[in-house]
Amino acid sequence: MTNLKSFKVVKQVRYASQLLPQLSSEKYKVTRKLFGHIRSSDIDYFKEILSADRVLTEESDVLPYNIDWIKNCRGQSKLVLKPKTTQEVSFILKYCNEKRLAVCPQGGNTGLVGGSVPVFDEIVLSFGLMNKIISLDELSGVLVCETGCVLENLDNYVRERKLIMPLDLGAKGSCQIGGNVSTNAGGLRLLRYGNLHGSVLGVEAVKADGTVIDCLRTLKKDNTGYHLKHLFIGSEGTLGVVTKVAIHCPALPKAVSVGFFGVENFNNILRLYASAKSSLGEILSAFEMADNDSISSTVKNLKLPNPISDYPFYVLVETSGSDEAHDAEKLTRFLEKEMDSGLIMDGTVTSEPAKMQTIWNLRENIASAGLLDGYVFKYDVSLPLTSYYNLVPLLRQKLGPMATKVYGYGHVGDGNIHINVTVPKYSKEVSSMLEPFIFEEVAKLRGSISAEHGVGFRKPHYIHYSKDATALLLMNQLKQLMDPNGILNPYKVLPDV
Amino acid sequence: MTNLKSFKVVKQVRYASQLLPQLSSEKYKVTRKLFGHIRSSDIDYFKEILSADRVLTEESDVLPYNIDWIKNCRGQSKLVLKPKTTQEVSFILKYCNEKRLAVCPQGGNTGLVGGSVPVFDEIVLSFGLMNKIISLDELSGVLVCETGCVLENLDNYVRERKLIMPLDLGAKGSCQIGGNVSTNAGGLRLLRYGNLHGSVLGVEAVKADGTVIDCLRTLKKDNTGYHLKHLFIGSEGTLGVVTKVAIHCPALPKAVSVGFFGVENFNNILRLYASAKSSLGEILSAFEMADNDSISSTVKNLKLPNPISDYPFYVLVETSGSDEAHDAEKLTRFLEKEMDSGLIMDGTVTSEPAKMQTIWNLRENIASAGLLDGYVFKYDVSLPLTSYYNLVPLLRQKLGPMATKVYGYGHVGDGNIHINVTVPKYSKEVSSMLEPFIFEEVAKLRGSISAEHGVGFRKPHYIHYSKDATALLLMNQLKQLMDPNGILNPYKVLPDV
Repeated sequence: MTNLKSFKVVKQVRYASQLLPQLSSEKYKVTRKLFGHIRSSDIDYFKEILSADRVLTEESDVLPYNIDWIKNCRGQSKLVLKPKTTQEVSFILKYCNEKRLAVCPQGGNTGLVGGSVPVFDEIVLSFGLMNKIISLDELSGVLVCETGCVLENLDNYVRERKLIMPLDLGAKGSCQIGGNVSTNAGGLRLLRYGNLHGSVLGVEAVKADGTVIDCLRTLKKDNTGYHLKHLFIGSEGTLGVVTKVAIHCPALPKAVSVGFFGVENFNNILRLYASAKSSLGEILSAFEMADNDSISSTVKNLKLPNPISDYPFYVLVETSGSDEAHDAEKLTRFLEKEMDSGLIMDGTVTSEPAKMQTIWNLRENIASAGLLDGYVFKYDVSLPLTSYYNLVPLLRQKLGPMATKVYGYGHVGDGNIHINVTVPKYSKEVSSMLEPFIFEEVAKLRGSISAEHGVGFRKPHYIHYSKDATALLLMNQLKQLMDPNGILNPYKVLPDV
Repeated sequence: MTNLKSFKVVKQVRYASQLLPQLSSEKYKVTRKLFGHIRSSDIDYFKEILSADRVLTEESDVLPYNIDWIKNCRGQSKLVLKPKTTQEVSFILKYCNEKRLAVCPQGGNTGLVGGSVPVFDEIVLSFGLMNKIISLDELSGVLVCETGCVLENLDNYVRERKLIMPLDLGAKGSCQIGGNVSTNAGGLRLLRYGNLHGSVLGVEAVKADGTVIDCLRTLKKDNTGYHLKHLFIGSEGTLGVVTKVAIHCPALPKAVSVGFFGVENFNNILRLYASAKSSLGEILSAFEMADNDSISSTVKNLKLPNPISDYPFYVLVETSGSDEAHDAEKLTRFLEKEMDSGLIMDGTVTSEPAKMQTIWNLRENIASAGLLDGYVFKYDVSLPLTSYYNLVPLLRQKLGPMATKVYGYGHVGDGNIHINVTVPKYSKEVSSMLEPFIFEEVAKLRGSISAEHGVGFRKPHYIHYSKDATALLLMNQLKQLMDPNGILNPYKVLPDV
């Protein structure tokens, strides 16, 4: 996939501009908790257990670890540690726990809710050097690897052995599997292969006190006691730090096709989805939508080609199967039926890798293209399908000319829409018009205020829109049980009690 | 499926014989914990919050709730409560927690490890009256229902709406969805639709102190805080009692075929599995194996027909897809190739419902057929595929003529084998030859001593063969956090510390 190119372009723009984002602590008015302060004796200790080259203290070296990908958050860490082994992670955490030094675990730093960067002077634990593949059982499809393996590298590795990773997302060239697991990343293949709670077979994690919890099983079924691995899947590094992952990789499909269609209105998208589920059945591997503004901004900002003309809505359908002729027949039948019915206004279908890539490129780059317009308020919500697109026109109406653009795109099959509001630059006024308004609307519709991006630093004070008081109390009790000193990724996920 | 008929036959045999199993407490030498004793004032209270007819105290009424399906365990409960609502469950637990009265939650009582029956005088909470379907969203496939709904009833209900339940098991005519979720039941469709941690979208559960934890979301994606529902999936009622379930139902396949093949040896089964994964791809929905003794005992004991002749091993392959012609072509191609190669010695393939049922009947009744031989020691383990069948010949050799039969059958696609050892009647000598020997062997191979049946009452003292000390400590801490008085399903899952 060439989408990485544009992903990297955006990164360069950021660093070239030298426009550092405001400090998170100031922007969001957060008070530092009573953690210890790093002393030179601490640095000496870390240099002893790692080695001097894996202990970063130079401001320019540390800076990239302090800023998140969407230039929204900036922390004040003075120290980055780069462990190579679980044992090193365990030593580091045990020490930090005893000294009450706060820690921010960081994978590929591609998160969108500020969960992967420090807020104050938390020590950054960076996992890029824990990137070894441990084993792959080609018959059962079980891959075991270290936490810092980049998703795309893993996908390439298993593809050579006729398997694929069960998840795929725009940031795959940078994001790491441990971060994917810790944030319960969703992405583009969830419709077909399910979520990580289903496909992660085992996890090795280190608790705040340095205890290694070994749930690194490679078995599809293991009903012996409580299923501890789920404590680490999606808890965003606040209950423990994932160090190894065992994951089930499905068979590589022999035939893949992509269709890109123009659709008149959102209701027709829902009708088309029902039809695709019925006609394409088990070969349907993605059903994505984007509105006109999503696609036209991406085409314009990143100079990407749109293979079809201008339509109010777009749908991307992907099929993946084991027999090219059968799949083509199913897809053709679906197309003919829905061109006739008018649900599909026009479109293109292709099995050529380069052309499929062009289409996916357009879809996957919507997230990064918006950044070139200035500042983007990003929301990632789940809603019942009938209300899936409701919020976009509502926000357009509410914001009027204050927003450059409001657009929606996402994974229809999962009920998950991404809503982006672009403005020339960050504005408190727009922010306060959007939040908590959007979360209130989501709560009214019994949706989730964070479908796949997590809570991170940005949303703890909105979590009550999706979780009730008894659930939050139990979450706090779990945090207290597993990290009594609160050193793991503080200021994140749970609101202060 | 007609397998229910034979399932019920076995039940009748049990009650007709009047041979009550030995008390669990005596058989396994367990000491009663210091729980409160039920007084008449307690009974009065329960009659007040439920109604007299939902409070069973007559010995003959209570007896069936004290005995498990395989006649292995017998408890001494004097009281069965049949709540109709979550509120009633909450009142009951709050009261029991205050009075330190122990509780045993019971669904369809089809478990195989004694988890669903009391050991001493625990109050049985029986969920058969909480059997309402709350909602079904036909487009997204999300079903919401109460805990006591029988799996087969749910499957019939959603089938009428072109969906199927994502799990299927031999006991489907009796087992309840809340029990399935609490035990993380596996079954016959796991290969295709994944496990319950993936397909259960939401759970409502009641904690030991009566607090209702509402995680009953119907969204496929919801990353807001810790994923609490997983605490209740597979913890066998020891961390909380499941009262409602939201589950994702896949689309009903339009075409289903079943093949039943004779295979020469186990190694050929593995080669056939690799070939099926490649040729049948996304339409492969089951790949089950059984050895000669499994099938011949079932044919003999239950007078069921075997559609093919006598072979050392049998493989059942099921395909489910959306296009009958395409699926038939794939299956025929697979068959021709593997008949030619000799991996399939002979077999039969059918799409006729009655004939498919005959084949599934044979497979699904292996578990109950053994009971007619006397007593069955049942093991349900996960093993790496290359060692999948190793333990069967090993046990045959070890037991010699002391066992009537030793046979193995199971879900090859999930690495899960069921090993049954039949003897004329329960014998301590055979038991001590089997345990912990079999668990030691499983541990050596890095397998799981309970793949899908759970730990229940029978295996807490063997759990260390699959989980290490730090994991067990964390499990105990979770139990202490969520049920500090230990009233929920005591003597189960975790060993005493």
